[in-house]
Amino acid sequence: MARIAVVAGDGIGPEVVAQALKVLDAVLPGVEATEYDLGAARYHRTGEVLPDSVLTELAGHDAILLGAVGDPTVPPGVLERGLLLKLRFAFDQYVNLRPSRLWPGVPGPLVNVKPGEVDLVVVREGTEGLYAGAGGSLHRDTPAEVATEESLNTRHGVERVIRDAFARAGRRERRKVTLVHKTNVLTHAGSLWARAFAAVAAEHPDVTTEYQHVDAAAMFLVTQPQRYDVVVTDNLFGDILTDIAAAVTGGIGLAASGCINPTGAYPSMFEPVHGSAPDIAGKGVADPVAAVLSAALLLDQLGHADAAARVTGAVAAELAGRTPGVALRTDEVGDRLAAHAVA
Amino acid sequence: MARIAVVAGDGIGPEVVAQALKVLDAVLPGVEATEYDLGAARYHRTGEVLPDSVLTELAGHDAILLGAVGDPTVPPGVLERGLLLKLRFAFDQYVNLRPSRLWPGVPGPLVNVKPGEVDLVVVREGTEGLYAGAGGSLHRDTPAEVATEESLNTRHGVERVIRDAFARAGRRERRKVTLVHKTNVLTHAGSLWARAFAAVAAEHPDVTTEYQHVDAAAMFLVTQPQRYDVVVTDNLFGDILTDIAAAVTGGIGLAASGCINPTGAYPSMFEPVHGSAPDIAGKGVADPVAAVLSAALLLDQLGHADAAARVTGAVAAELAGRTPGVALRTDEVGDRLAAHAVA
Ligand SMILES: CC(C)[C@H](C(=O)O)[C@@H](O)C(=O)O
Ligand SMILES: CC(C)[C@H](C(=O)O)[C@@H](O)C(=O)O
Repeated sequence: MARIAVVAGDGIGPEVVAQALKVLDAVLPGVEATEYDLGAARYHRTGEVLPDSVLTELAGHDAILLGAVGDPTVPPGVLERGLLLKLRFAFDQYVNLRPSRLWPGVPGPLVNVKPGEVDLVVVREGTEGLYAGAGGSLHRDTPAEVATEESLNTRHGVERVIRDAFARAGRRERRKVTLVHKTNVLTHAGSLWARAFAAVAAEHPDVTTEYQHVDAAAMFLVTQPQRYDVVVTDNLFGDILTDIAAAVTGGIGLAASGCINPTGAYPSMFEPVHGSAPDIAGKGVADPVAAVLSAALLLDQLGHADAAARVTGAVAAELAGRTPGVALRTDEVGDRLAAHAVA
Repeated sequence: MARIAVVAGDGIGPEVVAQALKVLDAVLPGVEATEYDLGAARYHRTGEVLPDSVLTELAGHDAILLGAVGDPTVPPGVLERGLLLKLRFAFDQYVNLRPSRLWPGVPGPLVNVKPGEVDLVVVREGTEGLYAGAGGSLHRDTPAEVATEESLNTRHGVERVIRDAFARAGRRERRKVTLVHKTNVLTHAGSLWARAFAAVAAEHPDVTTEYQHVDAAAMFLVTQPQRYDVVVTDNLFGDILTDIAAAVTGGIGLAASGCINPTGAYPSMFEPVHGSAPDIAGKGVADPVAAVLSAALLLDQLGHADAAARVTGAVAAELAGRTPGVALRTDEVGDRLAAHAVA
């Protein structure tokens, strides 16, 4: 039986995670969920962000489901680096998976894009690049100050995430992978990415490929998001592009994500892209759809593709039935999704 | 009298630059334009991208007007790095200025944004960051390959571009500057940018300030571009954000840009953001508006604010009078703009 570590976190985190667990339990009865108290609340109470003992315990689970961490009073970066990025690196979660769909029933922001037309997934590298933490500064607070940030890219790290992208594309209808980088300026890393991409592409003659500079891709995500199927890119480009993709498909309120270690050596982590939304916390009005879609990604990763598809289908039905502007109740949405997923 | 170096370049470059010169000449009779043959055509003919002698000659002008360089047969990066970036660095063009307006008459891609509502300018740093060319690789083409790219940031370079952004904001109606970075991950460079920003902000109590992470800014440019006035950011973030800003205001076909050295020690360069568009080159159907708006930025930089405003006004009238879907003739648009600018 699947053993899930649950980090409900702060703000609306616990509310939306409760619905995700409700749905998980409906489609996979007996899933074992253990709660871990991490996030802003714990940090304020104890000063701890992620004790080593907790890291070790988390490592013993099949997957992690996270709600949202943070509140405006935690110094910026503390939870991001001490918890979220720490887990991505400690658990070698090199596939940062971010699907974006413009679901029927969801009003998108683009004039020329109709519901149902966008269905893309960004495979963002999760353990390298500018997120490696390499950099420093000299002569701080003097006119001579200099600060550096270094993007570290290995053939090992780049090739494995590109492989994952091609494998995913091979399972999709359009079988297309777009590499996004900035090879005309970042020539060293760009060349490594381009050569690794070409090598993996050669093993997948059934998959169509294209290359775009990151600035062009950012533009096309706005003017023509329909053109993308699977997009593979580096850590920082992926951070930016996935927020654009979320924006053009109805906002981060609906976006799910997975930080995946495809080898299974360590647990993968699944979380809605939205934050803790302190302004609406505790009111029972947060939309749990992104958390529930994250649970679907979790199911898929653990090999329960059928259950994942049932959850995704329930979400599709829920969204198609919504009337824009009508308020929702978090727990009622969870009830409907759970019921629909097992119907 | 202003001495302008003109690099018409490839594809539609010469066609649109001809209109920009027509308009320039109308509002500033006697402007002295000297043509320089640079770009893909010269590269194919002679193998040269930017001979030192030409660089020296360009340095003797008051400004440079560029059309577009490149064609699909030039190896990627050759003209970008050998010409465009070379000029930005050689002439210390540290303010990369990219205004975005959703002009009345131009159909924008966003459901919730009405013409006239977006009027922002991105002040992108132009001489530092990941564009410095610092980086390298080891063990190329082996499984052990590693490649790095380094972002170099100096207090000198960061502070001067932030000062420029505040000065521009002080001359605008809303007087607001948004700093965009990724301080929660790029902690060294992020801290330098944030401290320099705070220091300059303290000297401008009349200017409102805010900070956003680059991923959030990318999203808000899609969901709420109206919220921005002046945005200041680093070289690579600016590259990406300005293409999003162009996309939400009708596309890079209308976007102008300036690579500016505000000290006047070297010439500034002005160019439409669009490329050489080989598919429509020579047909006389390219829209010269972006080139003409670039000429307006040039006029403004050389101290001819009134002439710049007349050109911008002519563009506003031209765009307001267009019927979407009706084909245009490049030279007719140029004639109309020139006539309107002096009317
Ligand atoms: C919180 C932050 C460190 C993180 C990132 O930059 O990866 C977030 O923006 C995300 O996309 O998951
Ligand atoms: C051509 C390329 C080097 C350039 C850049 O990255 O700055 C372009 O994208 C731009 O925005 O002017």
